[in-house]
Amino acid sequence: TKRYSITLLPGDGIGPEVISVAKNVLKLAGSLEEIEFSFQEMPMGGAALDLTGVPLPEETLSTAQRADAVLLGAIGGYKWDKNEKHLKPETGLLQLREGLKVFANLRPATVLPQLVDSSTLKKDVAEGVDLMVVRELTGGIYFGKPRGFGTNEKGEDIGFNTEVYSTHEIDRIARVAFEIARKRRGQLCSVDKANVLEASMLWRKRVTAIASEYPDVELSHMYVDNAAMQLVRYPKQFDTIVTNNIFGDILSDEASMITGSIGMLPSASLGESGPGLFEPIHGSAPDIAGQDKANPLATILSAAMLLKYGLGEANAANRIENAVLDTLNRGFRTGDIYSTGNKLVGCKEMGEEVLKSV
Amino acid sequence: TKRYSITLLPGDGIGPEVISVAKNVLKLAGSLEEIEFSFQEMPMGGAALDLTGVPLPEETLSTAQRADAVLLGAIGGYKWDKNEKHLKPETGLLQLREGLKVFANLRPATVLPQLVDSSTLKKDVAEGVDLMVVRELTGGIYFGKPRGFGTNEKGEDIGFNTEVYSTHEIDRIARVAFEIARKRRGQLCSVDKANVLEASMLWRKRVTAIASEYPDVELSHMYVDNAAMQLVRYPKQFDTIVTNNIFGDILSDEASMITGSIGMLPSASLGESGPGLFEPIHGSAPDIAGQDKANPLATILSAAMLLKYGLGEANAANRIENAVLDTLNRGFRTGDIYSTGNKLVGCKEMGEEVLKSV
Ligand SMILES: CC(C)[C@H](C(=O)O)[C@@H](O)C(=O)O
Ligand SMILES: CC(C)[C@H](C(=O)O)[C@@H](O)C(=O)O
Repeated sequence: TKRYSITLLPGDGIGPEVISVAKNVLKLAGSLEEIEFSFQEMPMGGAALDLTGVPLPEETLSTAQRADAVLLGAIGGYKWDKNEKHLKPETGLLQLREGLKVFANLRPATVLPQLVDSSTLKKDVAEGVDLMVVRELTGGIYFGKPRGFGTNEKGEDIGFNTEVYSTHEIDRIARVAFEIARKRRGQLCSVDKANVLEASMLWRKRVTAIASEYPDVELSHMYVDNAAMQLVRYPKQFDTIVTNNIFGDILSDEASMITGSIGMLPSASLGESGPGLFEPIHGSAPDIAGQDKANPLATILSAAMLLKYGLGEANAANRIENAVLDTLNRGFRTGDIYSTGNKLVGCKEMGEEVLKSV
Repeated sequence: TKRYSITLLPGDGIGPEVISVAKNVLKLAGSLEEIEFSFQEMPMGGAALDLTGVPLPEETLSTAQRADAVLLGAIGGYKWDKNEKHLKPETGLLQLREGLKVFANLRPATVLPQLVDSSTLKKDVAEGVDLMVVRELTGGIYFGKPRGFGTNEKGEDIGFNTEVYSTHEIDRIARVAFEIARKRRGQLCSVDKANVLEASMLWRKRVTAIASEYPDVELSHMYVDNAAMQLVRYPKQFDTIVTNNIFGDILSDEASMITGSIGMLPSASLGESGPGLFEPIHGSAPDIAGQDKANPLATILSAAMLLKYGLGEANAANRIENAVLDTLNRGFRTGDIYSTGNKLVGCKEMGEEVLKSV
């Protein structure tokens, strides 16, 4: 029997509901593969603010750092929206990413045949979309210094940030992306703004250099404005996309919405060593929190990514992925993905149905 | 008779073809409103590089600066793609924007009933979309200093740029956007990343402050990642969007592609005083250059924006806009917007048909 310790960060809004369901799925899939989990549940985000006054308590971070993997629900809510920056739930998330050094954010966007109608795109454009955005997560304008407020030479107030990338940062995210592309359809599209930004020029140069280590992967480059268009025009052209932190923030969300079912989409954030961070891409949805209406499938699929990318337990991961597909095939749908002819269920019941299929 | 001087910058690829057509339309619409134009045609982009060695010759800029308005075709092409940054056609465009001080870029994205099928979005999602992106064009990360290459404390090479906005820059673009929203449906959505970036926090603060001057306009705020999603999910929710240079680059292109007919979309770039710059949003399309296949309507509609926003000649502008709609209603289509049942025409013939309708 293999043993792993998992830190659970339920967070805010629908976070606790979806985490509780995903935990059960993780347990069952593990037990069928002779894997045993120990879980530590820790406060994070708004929940932590209310409890301890900070969005990422020391103890939450250190527990997460010692774990084999971290599963996060969702954070944020109206209640903390007006907080100062260092007291925002989102700041806790940025601190967690930094603290776990998870520089590679993997954001799959897949249109499942069962849910192709959820997309706002025409069926022939949406069907078969299966792409992965690899977003750099601990660098660029999110963390670059100097940053802050000041005055310019004319005495006007200014706000400023620094977009900065080093060869080391680019090389390591490029390698992650090439490795992933290699295991997918062998196509990597690097997205930048190298016609304007020096940070992007270095990005393009280094990604091109790293490509020589991966002769089996076909590399292309695209400007970010064009990428935003191409995702709408013909999303099937993409296999794997690699891009910086801010462009990745925008494009991975756009790609998610192309699928039309953001309640289905998981994510993984990986470092060089140490635990990965796994979370659904949806938010905390305060409007439906506590009503047993949330779609737990994104978190369940995040648990599958945890098994696959975080622990190398592909068999258990496949069990979960197949169970989700099977549950959809059996017609179960939460409200966000419901269409007539299917069976409308709540968060818990969806979890029970997935358990039956594991 | 009113007299205006217009600098024409045909540029590269299909630029000369579409400019030549738009010039005729401008002339005719003007003459019917007792407006006379004098045109100066100047080299710009790749054409200028070949001729003079730089993408924006001094004389082109000074002629443009003295004009009442500037109409640009398109710039760029494979031939100059590998040029060093200061010798790229795009650099000429950035220099032109800076030299004309056109800080406000207006990018309408409208789904015409005649062309709703061109969109990759489902009909009920696409139809009725009518939004305007107001993009800040001469500030932010495009022009911010310091920028360049260097090494960090670990001795690694870095590339860096500065995202910076001053109160003055934000206030003036906000006012342009509020004025436009006021003349449209009275809704302004300011897009930023104020949960992460200081430059965005100042942006949000100032846009909120300026809102008090426009009590008749309803202001909302949205994070850029969410905006990228909402444009796909439900684009009709937007009336006017205001955002910074780089987010505007991405979102205005995404919005254009939502319409599915980027060969139809014009743009205007305005300063505080001095001539505005008007150009179609499409590129130079080197693959179809010189084949009389280009869609001139985006440039013709840019000429309409020139009349309306650049010269305050609303009547002449309306003539052109109505002529374009009429020509579409009569079934004329270039290849990019062609669908069965319509009449396929080339660039020149489309121009002739529009002239008949002016
Ligand atoms: C909440 C916010 C700071 C975060 C980000 O911008 O990274 C979110 O949008 C995400 O993509 O996970
Ligand atoms: C060509 C490029 C420099 C330019 C920009 O990024 O502004 C273009 O994408 C645009 O939007 O006009």
